[in-house]
Amino acid sequence: MKNTIEKNVLVDVKGNRTYSGVLEGYDVYLNLVLKNANEMINGEVRGMHNRILVRGDNVIFVSPSKGDEQ
Amino acid sequence: MKNTIEKNVLVDVKGNRTYSGVLEGYDVYLNLVLKNANEMINGEVRGMHNRILVRGDNVIFVSPSKGDEQ
Amino acid sequence: MKNTIEKNVLVDVKGNRTYSGVLEGYDVYLNLVLKNANEMINGEVRGMHNRILVRGDNVIFVSPSKGDEQ
Amino acid sequence: MKNTIEKNVLVDVKGNRTYSGVLEGYDVYLNLVLKNANEMINGEVRGMHNRILVRGDNVIFVSPSKGDEQ
Amino acid sequence: MKNTIEKNVLVDVKGNRTYSGVLEGYDVYLNLVLKNANEMINGEVRGMHNRILVRGDNVIFVSPSKGDEQ
Amino acid sequence: MKNTIEKNVLVDVKGNRTYSGVLEGYDVYLNLVLKNANEMINGEVRGMHNRILVRGDNVIFVSPSKGDEQ
Amino acid sequence: MKNTIEKNVLVDVKGNRTYSGVLEGYDVYLNLVLKNANEMINGEVRGMHNRILVRGDNVIFVSPSKGDEQ
Repeated sequence: MKNTIEKNVLVDVKGNRTYSGVLEGYDVYLNLVLKNANEMINGEVRGMHNRILVRGDNVIFVSPSKGDEQ
Repeated sequence: MKNTIEKNVLVDVKGNRTYSGVLEGYDVYLNLVLKNANEMINGEVRGMHNRILVRGDNVIFVSPSKGDEQ
Repeated sequence: MKNTIEKNVLVDVKGNRTYSGVLEGYDVYLNLVLKNANEMINGEVRGMHNRILVRGDNVIFVSPSKGDEQ
Repeated sequence: MKNTIEKNVLVDVKGNRTYSGVLEGYDVYLNLVLKNANEMINGEVRGMHNRILVRGDNVIFVSPSKGDEQ
Repeated sequence: MKNTIEKNVLVDVKGNRTYSGVLEGYDVYLNLVLKNANEMINGEVRGMHNRILVRGDNVIFVSPSKGDEQ
Repeated sequence: MKNTIEKNVLVDVKGNRTYSGVLEGYDVYLNLVLKNANEMINGEVRGMHNRILVRGDNVIFVSPSKGDEQ
Repeated sequence: MKNTIEKNVLVDVKGNRTYSGVLEGYDVYLNLVLKNANEMINGEVRGMHNRILVRGDNVIFVSPSKGDEQ
């Protein structure tokens, strides 16, 4: 995860939610802070969050966006 | 989160609940205290809470309202 | 929460349950003891409890009743 | 809860279960031991348990029966 | 529970499962070891287990069989 | 469980999954390592795993296969 | 699991998700890092992840791919 800081990530969240944005920070519970995060629910865009804290226990996976992974 | 104290936040909660209000406090479990919180369930306004403590394990995300994030 | 002791609170609980009564006590897990608590399930009154201990992990929120918050 | 030992209690449990009986003991997880407990599932009597240990994480609330609370 | 060792017990388990057999052992999580355990799912007999370890977090209750409780 | 190492076991897992194979190891969370494990989902064979690590929190029960229990 | 590092694994995840890729790392919670991971949801290919961190509490099992287990 360390190499992913300040990189674009895709995050799948329980309840058919997906967030894509820049990973600003995370902790051991996988609580995530994203910047400029696009939110999709059931495949439909719900909106943009300039900054968002996603609670870790909802996270299914975190994946660096293609071109941004190392 | 520290910068978000006394700022407006949007909180998504399991069970299709959304709370928007002023963040008064939080702890490590993401228990949140909101002031002047508007409550929506399934997209419909349920009411206002002058003050409300939301138990952290229900929280999906916390996002500063636009114009209030840093 | 400290200021809410002996005040009227509204408590939303998972499973479409709502309890309103006087908060007698609570602990760090948000286990709550209410006095003269009115119980509603799916919006219908189920009954009154002179005293009730609600297990914290079921709690969604605790909100002081209007006029009783500080 | 201490005052409730040896008193009649009503216990709501996840999965539409209700137990009413004499509270013999409990622990910090709200594991409960009841004596002469009547079991109802979905509002129908399932049977009597001379003694029953209910695992705490299933408990929604414990309430002293009217006339037995202090 | 100590008095229930080597006694017949009825165990209700999440997912409409019921096990009845001789309690050989248990631990603080309510992990249970049963001997000669009869398994029912949705009220239908599924089979017998000479020995079975039931993981505690699935347990709803443990009740000594009538005639075997103390 | 100690006597069950290197014995055949039947494991019921949440989500209507069943694994039967040789128990190679386990830990306190009931994480299990099985060898030559047959996997069934909803009563249908899905396949064989030469080796499989089942995460403990999904386990409902572990039972030695008949003839292999002690 | 140690022998599985840098090997191909199949991972079943709650919500009918399956990931197959090279196991780069894991921790005690069974958080997994996979490389070149193929993602399937409900039996349909969703896509490829060059790298993906799967949160452990979603994992049902990890199984080395045939030919890669030891």
